[in-house]
Amino acid sequence: MPDDALVADFQATRIQSVTLCDTLAVEDYGLQREAFASPPKWHLAHTSWFFETFLLRPFLAGYQPHAPLYETLFNSYYNGVGTPFPRHQRGLLSRPTVREVLDYRRQVDAQMLRLLAQADHGSRELIGARCRLGIEHERQHQELFLTDIKYSMAANPLLPTVFPPPPHDGEPAEATAPAWLDFDGGLVEIGHDGPGFAFDNESPRHRCYLPPYRLASRLVTNGEYQDFVDDGGYRNPDLWLADGWDLVRERGWQSPLYWLESEGQPREYSLHGVIPRRPSAPVCHISAYEADAYARWAGARLPTEQEWEFAAAGLAIDARGLDGGCFHPRPAGPGRGLRQLYDSCWQWTRSAYEPYPGFQPPAGAIGEYNGKFMSNQWVLRGGSCASKPAQLRPSYRNFFYPGDRWQFSGLRLARDRPAS
Amino acid sequence: MPDDALVADFQATRIQSVTLCDTLAVEDYGLQREAFASPPKWHLAHTSWFFETFLLRPFLAGYQPHAPLYETLFNSYYNGVGTPFPRHQRGLLSRPTVREVLDYRRQVDAQMLRLLAQADHGSRELIGARCRLGIEHERQHQELFLTDIKYSMAANPLLPTVFPPPPHDGEPAEATAPAWLDFDGGLVEIGHDGPGFAFDNESPRHRCYLPPYRLASRLVTNGEYQDFVDDGGYRNPDLWLADGWDLVRERGWQSPLYWLESEGQPREYSLHGVIPRRPSAPVCHISAYEADAYARWAGARLPTEQEWEFAAAGLAIDARGLDGGCFHPRPAGPGRGLRQLYDSCWQWTRSAYEPYPGFQPPAGAIGEYNGKFMSNQWVLRGGSCASKPAQLRPSYRNFFYPGDRWQFSGLRLARDRPAS
Amino acid sequence: MPDDALVADFQATRIQSVTLCDTLAVEDYGLQREAFASPPKWHLAHTSWFFETFLLRPFLAGYQPHAPLYETLFNSYYNGVGTPFPRHQRGLLSRPTVREVLDYRRQVDAQMLRLLAQADHGSRELIGARCRLGIEHERQHQELFLTDIKYSMAANPLLPTVFPPPPHDGEPAEATAPAWLDFDGGLVEIGHDGPGFAFDNESPRHRCYLPPYRLASRLVTNGEYQDFVDDGGYRNPDLWLADGWDLVRERGWQSPLYWLESEGQPREYSLHGVIPRRPSAPVCHISAYEADAYARWAGARLPTEQEWEFAAAGLAIDARGLDGGCFHPRPAGPGRGLRQLYDSCWQWTRSAYEPYPGFQPPAGAIGEYNGKFMSNQWVLRGGSCASKPAQLRPSYRNFFYPGDRWQFSGLRLARDRPAS
Amino acid sequence: MPDDALVADFQATRIQSVTLCDTLAVEDYGLQREAFASPPKWHLAHTSWFFETFLLRPFLAGYQPHAPLYETLFNSYYNGVGTPFPRHQRGLLSRPTVREVLDYRRQVDAQMLRLLAQADHGSRELIGARCRLGIEHERQHQELFLTDIKYSMAANPLLPTVFPPPPHDGEPAEATAPAWLDFDGGLVEIGHDGPGFAFDNESPRHRCYLPPYRLASRLVTNGEYQDFVDDGGYRNPDLWLADGWDLVRERGWQSPLYWLESEGQPREYSLHGVIPRRPSAPVCHISAYEADAYARWAGARLPTEQEWEFAAAGLAIDARGLDGGCFHPRPAGPGRGLRQLYDSCWQWTRSAYEPYPGFQPPAGAIGEYNGKFMSNQWVLRGGSCASKPAQLRPSYRNFFYPGDRWQFSGLRLARDRPAS
Ligand SMILES: [Fe+3]
Ligand SMILES: [Fe+3]
Ligand SMILES: [Fe+3]
Ligand SMILES: [Fe+3]
Repeated sequence: MPDDALVADFQATRIQSVTLCDTLAVEDYGLQREAFASPPKWHLAHTSWFFETFLLRPFLAGYQPHAPLYETLFNSYYNGVGTPFPRHQRGLLSRPTVREVLDYRRQVDAQMLRLLAQADHGSRELIGARCRLGIEHERQHQELFLTDIKYSMAANPLLPTVFPPPPHDGEPAEATAPAWLDFDGGLVEIGHDGPGFAFDNESPRHRCYLPPYRLASRLVTNGEYQDFVDDGGYRNPDLWLADGWDLVRERGWQSPLYWLESEGQPREYSLHGVIPRRPSAPVCHISAYEADAYARWAGARLPTEQEWEFAAAGLAIDARGLDGGCFHPRPAGPGRGLRQLYDSCWQWTRSAYEPYPGFQPPAGAIGEYNGKFMSNQWVLRGGSCASKPAQLRPSYRNFFYPGDRWQFSGLRLARDRPAS
Repeated sequence: MPDDALVADFQATRIQSVTLCDTLAVEDYGLQREAFASPPKWHLAHTSWFFETFLLRPFLAGYQPHAPLYETLFNSYYNGVGTPFPRHQRGLLSRPTVREVLDYRRQVDAQMLRLLAQADHGSRELIGARCRLGIEHERQHQELFLTDIKYSMAANPLLPTVFPPPPHDGEPAEATAPAWLDFDGGLVEIGHDGPGFAFDNESPRHRCYLPPYRLASRLVTNGEYQDFVDDGGYRNPDLWLADGWDLVRERGWQSPLYWLESEGQPREYSLHGVIPRRPSAPVCHISAYEADAYARWAGARLPTEQEWEFAAAGLAIDARGLDGGCFHPRPAGPGRGLRQLYDSCWQWTRSAYEPYPGFQPPAGAIGEYNGKFMSNQWVLRGGSCASKPAQLRPSYRNFFYPGDRWQFSGLRLARDRPAS
Repeated sequence: MPDDALVADFQATRIQSVTLCDTLAVEDYGLQREAFASPPKWHLAHTSWFFETFLLRPFLAGYQPHAPLYETLFNSYYNGVGTPFPRHQRGLLSRPTVREVLDYRRQVDAQMLRLLAQADHGSRELIGARCRLGIEHERQHQELFLTDIKYSMAANPLLPTVFPPPPHDGEPAEATAPAWLDFDGGLVEIGHDGPGFAFDNESPRHRCYLPPYRLASRLVTNGEYQDFVDDGGYRNPDLWLADGWDLVRERGWQSPLYWLESEGQPREYSLHGVIPRRPSAPVCHISAYEADAYARWAGARLPTEQEWEFAAAGLAIDARGLDGGCFHPRPAGPGRGLRQLYDSCWQWTRSAYEPYPGFQPPAGAIGEYNGKFMSNQWVLRGGSCASKPAQLRPSYRNFFYPGDRWQFSGLRLARDRPAS
Repeated sequence: MPDDALVADFQATRIQSVTLCDTLAVEDYGLQREAFASPPKWHLAHTSWFFETFLLRPFLAGYQPHAPLYETLFNSYYNGVGTPFPRHQRGLLSRPTVREVLDYRRQVDAQMLRLLAQADHGSRELIGARCRLGIEHERQHQELFLTDIKYSMAANPLLPTVFPPPPHDGEPAEATAPAWLDFDGGLVEIGHDGPGFAFDNESPRHRCYLPPYRLASRLVTNGEYQDFVDDGGYRNPDLWLADGWDLVRERGWQSPLYWLESEGQPREYSLHGVIPRRPSAPVCHISAYEADAYARWAGARLPTEQEWEFAAAGLAIDARGLDGGCFHPRPAGPGRGLRQLYDSCWQWTRSAYEPYPGFQPPAGAIGEYNGKFMSNQWVLRGGSCASKPAQLRPSYRNFFYPGDRWQFSGLRLARDRPAS
């Protein structure tokens, strides 16, 4: 990528993080309902910390840190940088205030632009790569900001509206039946390769063998999932993985995370407030255990991440995501082939999040970005209505614990296919 | 009390709660570090809820509740009013915003003044009594606001200064040795009686028998407590009640709550920021277990609440408390007799918080105010630098769990005295 | 007490602890359902450890400890003796085996008899006093053995019968209505004094003032308590202390600990197996919170420990207790005056367990026996069907946490009485 | 397998489970230190329950269950059979006694032999397959019995010797350096196929692609692992997966589970008591996190389960395992090729436990055997000194949570190999 484009991406990303918060009250910036749902202000500060820590400190001559304790306060989990402030207490950082954090952002921005302008810097290439990583990192946090604030707001009985309702778009009230699309598999290649950006965990590209399989053309809908609920899905242990069944009982799960009833009508809480729960919209905010149980109930299974990537390879990435201003997944429109790959919900796969053969994280603290999380989590593929579309691609590996429900996570069914 | 005085107290109290928050940032209003430390905004709303619930709703004809869900959101623990919002989640109520809560306060105030102006109201007397209770309730919350925000702020490594430093007042650097003051005891009377306000738990006034005893003329100081620490007080189980020793190990206690060292100097965190830890100032923010262990180490004991009240009866209440703007206890000044009764720290007694003989809480939800907490807590007597002085009196019974440390709690030693 | 009587008591007590276990299977000796319910084998070893630690080691010349690690394994809570083995893991001590523990007992017995025979021992008096304490300590553990094994056995769906059913004794099926007995109170004396044995916590005898009061002539029955249950007692927070109501919800309490239904009939689990729940028998295995809530529902209150002791003083102690072989409380028989003082259930009082004025525990580790537990617990008075009758007396203070239910704990109602 | 051989295996297995317990005291049969470590008696009963539930009840005409509640008490986790007794309370089942459980076993055995003798039974084939599964199930529990009793005994400060010390066998004190053995990989086949028994999770046999790799010829030794410890391995977060590092801190791990020092010498607790910790013996009782961290420290990695199986395929299974009477792993003897595949420690792989492509568990409750555990666990391959050697094979998939340490779990290093 030419430097001008990098600078433009940097600036646009930095601005977008702030404008995404435009409708928040100052009081909202500190909300943290659980350890995993960071406050908006913390996201704004931490993404700046990332640039300060991995670019300004090592590469900008004479750089003076903005404020000494910020290194600790806004370090997420990089042990190589020092001891991070305890994650579950991020909501207790009323200071620095929102204004102070925005100052911090501005100063980091100014210094970053100075650094990026040093055309003859000895580490120019590394700076470019790190800056790109910083941008992609911030885009990930934009999505996390959306899912975190949704989760935190949902604890408030007032069920606040975070964003204005999206424009009505005349979508179909009835979901069309999904088609089954066939894939031959065989000895295929998976993983990122080539000049574009990708995270370290998408590499190296490598061969793997896939038996023939089928994927559903669209995601499972609210209506279909309601049938599962009505059929006693949450009361039948036969459908569940053992660890999932333990969670069902421990947490009292009876439906997806944000489903609710009001005035006898099915609704769901969304970033646009409480809205009708449309049968044709994809079910979302379900754990991998729920996705897996639904699939078993439906006589199908979850795809593997390799099956997903192989099927998606080469297809257009037609997503509005968080640029579109509608932060809730929409029903599938008409059309052929694989629908809703990137624009609705992340799709749980049956694949544990493991290193690819030959995987090597980069040296130093930056190597903690992805690699150390490769246990106990499951891979999701695709993208969601809250994703930055510019960062989606077939090889992208999202990962969460199988019990997590606060992401825009849904499912696409898969099946084995007899070899032809 | 004539009505004018009641109205004046009402107005002054309502204003003072808001002005106490003057130096807060908007971000601070939502802070809640643990379940017991409510956010400033919640205190502001809950004290209004009290007037709305126990006065406007039952007594003001045609009153329309300010907002329906507030009844739940700002109910602390009155089961008779409905199901309170979970205490540990009060910090998640970013909405209503600070501005909205101040609006709520203003509307409640306006309606309350209307109600109080109804000279011919059929329940005029009950309204007066309830309003007095509401004022005293709000004064208690003013102190809680101060101790809660201190506790929450202390979780921030920036250790913010909440209030400007108090004016220097030329106090003695050295504590004078405490005197032992003798009391004969005998068959005495304890408890509130008479026309002034008192909480239900101070009644009925009743006889009890006290053997002869002694009380220290002032509170135990930081310097004296340091000797206990240096002597291994926190490592010697012989000094501790068993439940206290469990807490010492479980929570890793090694000193009072806000003690710290910086640059090799003894300091403590205060509402005025980090300040030097003066040897002559009273030790504070200790649990009853620490107070009890210190007393045992010092060859003394804690007083009973009856001993304290009997000794304090009739003495002047010379306290500036939260009206004074200095939210940290000062060393004892010169003088004779019992010092530091009301103006420094609450004083742990050895008395479990139990009903007085013949105690009867009022009927209805208002009866939940005090009576239902009469288990597992210990009584503190006196008052502190964060108390509203107008509400202090010899018969006042403060109560907290013996492991609690976030109040301004210290200790005064007592001893048995051979009958003369 | 003359030495011969002491030796006889020692021998009888040591034998009775073992014979109480006669009906156990070897497998039962290790059962520990929760930290507070020690295994039978541990009781047998710990009571021996007490004699070894506080008598044989300090006073018997040349004594060699039976096995070095026993000092740790069978130390309950005496920090002055060393670090006790973790309480909640006592059930994991399959070794030493039952046979080895019985050997340990026999050797301790033999050495103790040698020590007691030394008529000219320089510490003869102290040895006598300590031996008496050891006997009374073991009697307390006999009762704990019974309540602990009941609690542990009750976790087994087979609901084993621990003891053969007691002989039928023709008791009344219908409880007679309780009478209210009046007491004048006044300035009275409470506490132990005189030559007989008492625990340190019963001293010193001291004056206190009691307003006039009434006590019910008998304990509350299952039938009466059933009315409370049927009236929604467990669903009405108004009746409960706040901490008690938290436990009701947290633990799902809906009735006393061992109540059950089988084949549509009311039953309860007893040490004699599952038996009919007789309406006339006293309700037992209730927490202080349940006792307090029942009393409030019944328009009464719990007595204070002083009220109980004053009323019981001088009355005959007519109890069969654990000598009688019937380990379940019986209905009150006919008669006048205070019934069921010692032979049925311990009676919760409203008194927190606090030191008497002037209380001083003995020096050394033995001082940890009682004093360090004087926080958060409540006093029970009387005795139960599982108590050693020889150790009951009006001044005896039993104490447990107000949420504890595994003891034979019931209640006797009290009321205020207008001064005549 | 001809029926005679099946019957012989059945009888031998049933006898061996009991004789493995020969050195236990009755008191040991009930030990359960944590939920995952079942008591010996429970293993004896549960393996019988398996035959009763899946063979006698459905297939033996007129069969009367041995005791009605056993169906619940000894059900491990089969929801299809009913609600299992809570796992963490198995240690509370003092009844049925050991004698009663042995009676249960004898009666099940007698009835099973009757069933197996019915040559003309309509379900003869299914009975044979189920019986084979029951035998293999019991062999798995024989190993669990050994690891569970070791874990429970280790909580006892007496550190009891469970089995007599094994005969000295003149093994090398020094470990020979490991060789790296090269494998080409490629498109290979993995999984069970053919007539012999295998668990459902080993099927179907399927293709997968393996890049070239290397495996160490023997397991990592205590001596090598000591270097990791000495180098600060347990204090360096860079070496650890994030979830593993959390456990290191939470549980205070500083070495493998049973390492200890006594009299200044390195030792370890074994089923033969406390023994010297031989540098040449394989390190064992480590979690997958420790194995993974060690491998990273050593510049290597864990193998995948496919790499392991492909390398082991066709090699002799030369293991004495639990038939040999030595329940502690021995150093590698001399020799070429892959050593210590089956006879020392299970070997953690880097593979999450997932279904093979096309995996289908059998219908009914028996389908809960393996499939429902396919989340959050990692695969171990090989076998251990506590395994029944007759059930080991290259395709066998053992699985535990990556934080588990109480199995005989060690590690074999792997490395990528440049394609030749
Ligand atoms: Fe980040
Ligand atoms: Fe309040
Ligand atoms: Fe004891
Ligand atoms: Fe099993």
